[in-house]
Amino acid sequence: MDATPLGAEQAVQDMARRAKAASRSLATATRADKDALLEALADALFADTGPILAANAQDLQRGRAEQMSPGLLDRLALTEDRIGQIAAALRELAGLPDPVGEVVRGSTLPNGLQLRQVRVPMGVVAMIYEARPNVTVDAAGLALKSGNAVLLRGGSAALSSNTVIVATLRRALEAQGWSPDLVQSVDAWGREGGVALMRARGLVDVLVPRGGANLIATVVREAVVPVIETGVGNCHLYVDASADVAQALEVMLNAKTQRVGVCNALETLLVHKEVARDFLPRAVLALAEAGVTVHGDPATLALAPPGTLTAPATDEDWAAEYLSLDLAVRVVADLDAALEHIATYSSGHTEAICTTDLRASQRFVAEVDSAAVMVNASTRFTDGGQFGLGAEIGISTQKLHARGPMGLAELTTTKWVVHGDGHVRS
Amino acid sequence: MDATPLGAEQAVQDMARRAKAASRSLATATRADKDALLEALADALFADTGPILAANAQDLQRGRAEQMSPGLLDRLALTEDRIGQIAAALRELAGLPDPVGEVVRGSTLPNGLQLRQVRVPMGVVAMIYEARPNVTVDAAGLALKSGNAVLLRGGSAALSSNTVIVATLRRALEAQGWSPDLVQSVDAWGREGGVALMRARGLVDVLVPRGGANLIATVVREAVVPVIETGVGNCHLYVDASADVAQALEVMLNAKTQRVGVCNALETLLVHKEVARDFLPRAVLALAEAGVTVHGDPATLALAPPGTLTAPATDEDWAAEYLSLDLAVRVVADLDAALEHIATYSSGHTEAICTTDLRASQRFVAEVDSAAVMVNASTRFTDGGQFGLGAEIGISTQKLHARGPMGLAELTTTKWVVHGDGHVRS
Repeated sequence: MDATPLGAEQAVQDMARRAKAASRSLATATRADKDALLEALADALFADTGPILAANAQDLQRGRAEQMSPGLLDRLALTEDRIGQIAAALRELAGLPDPVGEVVRGSTLPNGLQLRQVRVPMGVVAMIYEARPNVTVDAAGLALKSGNAVLLRGGSAALSSNTVIVATLRRALEAQGWSPDLVQSVDAWGREGGVALMRARGLVDVLVPRGGANLIATVVREAVVPVIETGVGNCHLYVDASADVAQALEVMLNAKTQRVGVCNALETLLVHKEVARDFLPRAVLALAEAGVTVHGDPATLALAPPGTLTAPATDEDWAAEYLSLDLAVRVVADLDAALEHIATYSSGHTEAICTTDLRASQRFVAEVDSAAVMVNASTRFTDGGQFGLGAEIGISTQKLHARGPMGLAELTTTKWVVHGDGHVRS
Repeated sequence: MDATPLGAEQAVQDMARRAKAASRSLATATRADKDALLEALADALFADTGPILAANAQDLQRGRAEQMSPGLLDRLALTEDRIGQIAAALRELAGLPDPVGEVVRGSTLPNGLQLRQVRVPMGVVAMIYEARPNVTVDAAGLALKSGNAVLLRGGSAALSSNTVIVATLRRALEAQGWSPDLVQSVDAWGREGGVALMRARGLVDVLVPRGGANLIATVVREAVVPVIETGVGNCHLYVDASADVAQALEVMLNAKTQRVGVCNALETLLVHKEVARDFLPRAVLALAEAGVTVHGDPATLALAPPGTLTAPATDEDWAAEYLSLDLAVRVVADLDAALEHIATYSSGHTEAICTTDLRASQRFVAEVDSAAVMVNASTRFTDGGQFGLGAEIGISTQKLHARGPMGLAELTTTKWVVHGDGHVRS
C-alpha cells in the first residue's frame, strides 16, 4: 500500500466519493429499513464477539508494551459484556424517532407556490476520535440512523479492534442488501488518513471530532471541511448573595463531584462577597471531605477551615478545565463581577447560578453567553439523555448549526421543496 | 498607523473585543429599541447624503482612472435616489419580526426541571464583501436587527464611501445612546484587515462573505472562524419525457433570462431524449431570440434550427456558472442520467424539473441534493423575499446551520435555559 500523503489524500477522496454514492440509497430509506439495519448490525457484532475480543487483546498488549496509562487502557478494553452493551446501544438507537422527513416549515405563497422545508440527511459524515472502539459502533449507528454514510478515523491504539469491527459492520451491511461503503475507515492511512478527511472539501459534508481538547483544537485548526466543535467545558457556578445556602452547597458538590472527568462538571466557583463568610467555610470543608483541592483567591483561602485542601489560584486556574478533583474558587464583589469573570474565562459550555432573587436570575440567564445556563440546578444536567433528546453525538460549544447537546437531528440538514404549475417570476 | 500584518491582527482583535463588549447591551435590547435605532440610522444616512455622495465621487474617479468595468462602476455608484433606497431598506428591516427571544423548544422534564431553548444573537458578526457601499448599510442593519455587533470589510474600491457611511452610522449609534463599537470597519487595514477577521477565532462568532465565487472561495479556504458560505449557483432544469412542453419552455426562458447575473439563474438545461425532438428546436429558437448562446452536446446541436446561437459544449460548460446570456444544454437518456449529471456538476443551489409524472417528480425531489428543488417552477424563486422570509442575508449552499435563503434568524443561535429548585443529578 502506498502510504505517502498524496496516496492517502487520493484514497480518502475515493472513499468519500463511494460514501456519497452509497448515501443516496440511504437518504430515501424508510425508518423501518434503517431500524432493521441497526438491529442486524447489533446481531453481527454480538456474533463476532470472539474475533473482536481477539483483536482487542492485540491492541491492549501493544498498549501495555507502550506504557499506556491505566485510564486509557480501560477505555480501550472490550469485554463480552461491553460488546453486549455496544450492541444494545444500536438497538436503542433503532427505537428512537427518525429526524429525516420532518417538515420544519411550510406554506402556500400568495402566488400559489407550495413551499416546504424538509429535514434531509447531510450525506457524508466523518468522525475523528480517540482509542475507544465503542465510539466506532456508536458513530456508525448515529450516522446510519440519520441517513448518512460515515467515514471513520479512530485512534491508532485501537487499530486492530476497529479493523475487525468495521469489517463486521460492512459484512452485515452487504448481507442486508446495503452498500458496505456506507461505513468506511481511513485508519489504514494512519494520521494522514485523518488529515485527508479534514481536507476533503466538497466530499465530506460535516466532520465531528469526538475526544479531548487537543484533538478538537487540532481538527478545528486544520479542517477545511465544515466542523462541529464539541465538548470543552470550563463550567462555572455563581453563588449569589441571596442564594439558599444549603441548596447551593448541594448543587456545588453535585456539579463538582458526581462525575469528575466530564465536560459538564464544575471547574470554577464564584461566590458573592456577602454570602462568602456563611457559604465558603462549609463549602471548602465539604469539598475537602470529597477529596477536592480548592485553588482559591486570597479571600477564599482566608475563609478556608484549617486542614482542608487548598492552594493559591493563578490565572491558569481560572482558565482550566481540570477534569479532576480540583476546583478554582473566587470571591466576587457582585453579579457584575461574576458575569465579567465568566465572560473572560468560560468556554461557553454551561454556567449556573444559585439565587433566590428573580432579577439576578434573569440577568444571569440573559447575559451569560453559553450553550446552557442553569438556575438552581447542577451543571451536570447539560446532557442529551438528561434533556430527553435521545442519543447524544456530543455537546456543541460553537454557535453555528448546533449549540449544546446534539441529537440525531443535528446530523441532518434541510432542503426547500417547491411545487408549482409552470410558475415563472415576473 | 502601523499597517504591518501583526499590527492589523492586533488591531482587529481589539476591535472584535470591543464589538463583543458592545454586543452585550444589544443582546438584551427589545425589538422596539432596535427598530428605533434602525430608523435613526436611516435618518442619519439621509441627512448625510451630501458628504456620502462627495466621498463616492472620489471612489468613482479613482475607479475610472483604474479602468474599472462599467458594471463594477455601476455597483459602486451612489445617487441621492440610491441613498434614499438604502435608508428605506433600513426602515423595512425595522418592520420585520425580531427572531431574538423565540422559544424554539421547551418542556418540563420528569424531574421537574424546566427546559427552554431560546433564540439569541450570535454576538459578533463579520462580513467581507465587494465594492458596493449599499452592502455596508445592509450588513449593519441585518446584524443590529438580529442583536449582533458587526465588523465590516468592504472592497477597497469603495473605501472613501464606506469610511463616510460607517462614520455616519457610528455617530448615529452614539447619539441614540448605543456604543459606536456595534458597527466597526477594518478597511483602514486593507486586505490584512480582512485576513485578520478570518483568523479571529473565538472573537468573531460568524463570518459571512457576500460576493462572487472567488471571494467566497478565498474566505472558505483561509478562514478559521465559522463561515456561512453563500451564493454560487450552477442551477439545472431537467425537462422530463412527460413534461408539458409549453410550460417547460416558459419556465426555462424565465429561469435563464428574467435576470442573468444572479445565483438562481439557470445555467444548464437537461432534456429527456424522448421529448428532445419536440422541445429543443423551439427552445433553442426562443433562446436565440432572447440573445442566449446555447453550448450544446452533439444531440442538441443536431436539433438546433439554422441561424440560432450555438457552440459545442465542453466539460467546462457543464461546470460553469455563466451569469451571462449562455446556457449549457444536454440531451439525456432518462431521469437517472439527469440525476447523475446533476450530482456531478451542481453547486447545490437550485435544481428544477418540468414533468407531469408524479413518480418522476418524487424521485427528483428526493434524490437531488441541493438547497432548493423546484417542480414545474422557475429556479428564480429561490430567494428570501419570494419565500416570504423578509430581508435576505444570502443564499447558503452549505449544509451546516443554514441551507438556502437566509433570513434574520440565521444570524442568531440558541441557548438552553434550565430552571430548577436545587436539582442535582444522581
